Amino acid sequence: MKEKLKVGYVGLGGRGHGQMSLSLDMKDIEVVAVCDVYPDRVQRALNTIAKKRPEIVAKGYADYRELVKDPELDCVVVTSSWQTHARIAEAAMRAGKPTAIEVGGASSLEECWRLVRAYEETGSPCMMLENCCYGETEMALYDMVDKGQFGELVHMQGAYAHDLRDEITHGLINRHYRFRNFQHRNGELYPTHALGPLAKMLRINRGNRFLTLVSMASKSRGLNTYIKDKFGEDHEYAKINWCEGDIVTTLIKCANGETITLQHDDSLPRAYSRELRVQGDRGIYEEDGDRYIIDGKSEIKGWDYEWFKFSEDLPQNDHPLWKWFKEKGVEGGHGGMDYLVQRAFYESIMKGVEPPIDVYDTAAWMCITCLSEQSVSMGSMPVPIPDFTNGLWMQREEEPKTKYSLNKVHYDLFED
Amino acid sequence: MKEKLKVGYVGLGGRGHGQMSLSLDMKDIEVVAVCDVYPDRVQRALNTIAKKRPEIVAKGYADYRELVKDPELDCVVVTSSWQTHARIAEAAMRAGKPTAIEVGGASSLEECWRLVRAYEETGSPCMMLENCCYGETEMALYDMVDKGQFGELVHMQGAYAHDLRDEITHGLINRHYRFRNFQHRNGELYPTHALGPLAKMLRINRGNRFLTLVSMASKSRGLNTYIKDKFGEDHEYAKINWCEGDIVTTLIKCANGETITLQHDDSLPRAYSRELRVQGDRGIYEEDGDRYIIDGKSEIKGWDYEWFKFSEDLPQNDHPLWKWFKEKGVEGGHGGMDYLVQRAFYESIMKGVEPPIDVYDTAAWMCITCLSEQSVSMGSMPVPIPDFTNGLWMQREEEPKTKYSLNKVHYDLFED
Repeated sequence: MKEKLKVGYVGLGGRGHGQMSLSLDMKDIEVVAVCDVYPDRVQRALNTIAKKRPEIVAKGYADYRELVKDPELDCVVVTSSWQTHARIAEAAMRAGKPTAIEVGGASSLEECWRLVRAYEETGSPCMMLENCCYGETEMALYDMVDKGQFGELVHMQGAYAHDLRDEITHGLINRHYRFRNFQHRNGELYPTHALGPLAKMLRINRGNRFLTLVSMASKSRGLNTYIKDKFGEDHEYAKINWCEGDIVTTLIKCANGETITLQHDDSLPRAYSRELRVQGDRGIYEEDGDRYIIDGKSEIKGWDYEWFKFSEDLPQNDHPLWKWFKEKGVEGGHGGMDYLVQRAFYESIMKGVEPPIDVYDTAAWMCITCLSEQSVSMGSMPVPIPDFTNGLWMQREEEPKTKYSLNKVHYDLFED
Repeated sequence: MKEKLKVGYVGLGGRGHGQMSLSLDMKDIEVVAVCDVYPDRVQRALNTIAKKRPEIVAKGYADYRELVKDPELDCVVVTSSWQTHARIAEAAMRAGKPTAIEVGGASSLEECWRLVRAYEETGSPCMMLENCCYGETEMALYDMVDKGQFGELVHMQGAYAHDLRDEITHGLINRHYRFRNFQHRNGELYPTHALGPLAKMLRINRGNRFLTLVSMASKSRGLNTYIKDKFGEDHEYAKINWCEGDIVTTLIKCANGETITLQHDDSLPRAYSRELRVQGDRGIYEEDGDRYIIDGKSEIKGWDYEWFKFSEDLPQNDHPLWKWFKEKGVEGGHGGMDYLVQRAFYESIMKGVEPPIDVYDTAAWMCITCLSEQSVSMGSMPVPIPDFTNGLWMQREEEPKTKYSLNKVHYDLFED
């Protein structure tokens, strides 16, 4: 049981710097090494550390292969671009470091398998920092699902629906990896914010697994229209042939017969939503509309049902971890989710237990991206999703039913 | 130009009797022949006619092949079970009668082609009575789409989401065809309520067409759970192995690059919705939430947009046909849609013009059912959707842009 951790951060763009700053707010975490290919980012990070935690003597690196070898480090957090997550994480794991990676999709199945192999050969854990797994809504849903309020799960939906036209078209200026991904790829580029929590509810890799997917992409119009309106017809970006369809819809079939509809919707005008839906044989929850129905409790009015307001009933459905979090005082970005997911990673290392999102989860969630590209490119052919556990999903220990939680570590904390 | 029509009705279950009764409320329509395989239904229909329109001398038939030959008839309306629509319609068309069929899906591509062949060989029109094409919301959307308020269309969604567990499990008692369809089939059984209006917005068969689809079905739990709860474990229905998955999701790709997500969701507890979504490069409409966003008009608040309330703005977006309808006084079932779709059929015959929903629309919408069954049964393989126009979709006359309407006939009526 460690009381403190020394952490290295690799990738210091907007997200990396933000996550590192949050870690610096934690008294038991010392960020002692930072790394980026851009020297200005490394310097900015060192300045932030010096300002927030003047007692820390931190090192700057340009090459992650050097950072991961640093014997001082207890763990590594990878917050780089999507297409570099896996190779950096693999290097850190093979250097013996427990490793966290930010969210993002895989470029190939091979890089997912490399993470799995690195874990199985070294024992170094690998956890995706999927913050939405720790959303208050999502965690309340874990408990409601576990209590059987929706009955047996049948169908789930989710999306990353976020108008990123402004962010994407500033891509080359702010060195944002989304630009090149939208320019060159066509598929479910960002699956995990919705899929992570849904996979946890469906107990994927713990008695269930993803079997197959199909994806279909619409034409691409949003970015070109936006660029022409904002920068004019003659702007260099207006001539780009963006490959990413504005709407990419993916259907996933699970071993236990459930289906998942997932949507990537980032280049059209719209309000933000993860569009979660949880549907069982005794009830339904919908994020859009902030509502749910429980069969037998909701009154039936002709063709319609009485919807309960989810947020109004949250006090009675709130997850114990979130009750604790609110009493303690919510902190960290994205409404507290960033804090919780970081703590889950750090505390699993301190206590020497497996992280609540493990390498099999990470691989299963990331692979959706490259598989959806394959399906789109083959005219929506179904594509098999690998079993990264090689059969162990059927026998992997289930989290205790009465304590259904992503994070037993935190649960213990709460109960102490 | 005919002033009156003599009509024959085939299929007199709940829906057929209701549609016939509505026709009897129209002074220029005389239902002079009715047909059903169940004598009690024929007698009930004759009684209704005698009561509502005592001046009509109506005939009862047990065999539709006899009814369609009746020289007195100007047209035939087919309101039988799903799997008998096409064969009855074909017989009526080949007997020289303009024919309407109720909504429903096809059992095979062959029966769709038979309708097309019957039309092309005889000139007898065939119109699906897709009442939702005449919904006030849907018609307002036609105008908004035509005015470019959502920009270029990119993606559409729709569903038939309706808890029919009670209706289905009364199936054998009330001789309802849904029972056997849920028992034996697995696919998008009821596509047209959402797909019809979306196809009209996308100008399918008039400069656009459906290219391909994939379907995925969840497991089937809803009916068994419902039956066990309501009738007990030992009830004969509780032992049925229902083939229809509770949620069947279908993705359709169009020639002009748009995608459509369609869902069949009839055997789980939920509120009714057709879940329409219209998404273009300048705006979005969503039925659930009664809301829409217009780029440049909706204010952007951080990650979010100001949603406009669709129903509040309906006075300014209402379709001219609906303005006329409300001034005249809305009548007929399903909020007036049944009246409008019947009038569209009858008036197209009276005026000798093509019906606003023609045989190519009817075939393209119906075929989704059997094609989705094929895709589901082959593990979500993509399936090509036939071009029932044999290439004419590229050159078929577009309805006048300034008068975008399903129903030029009604438009004329309104303008007189």
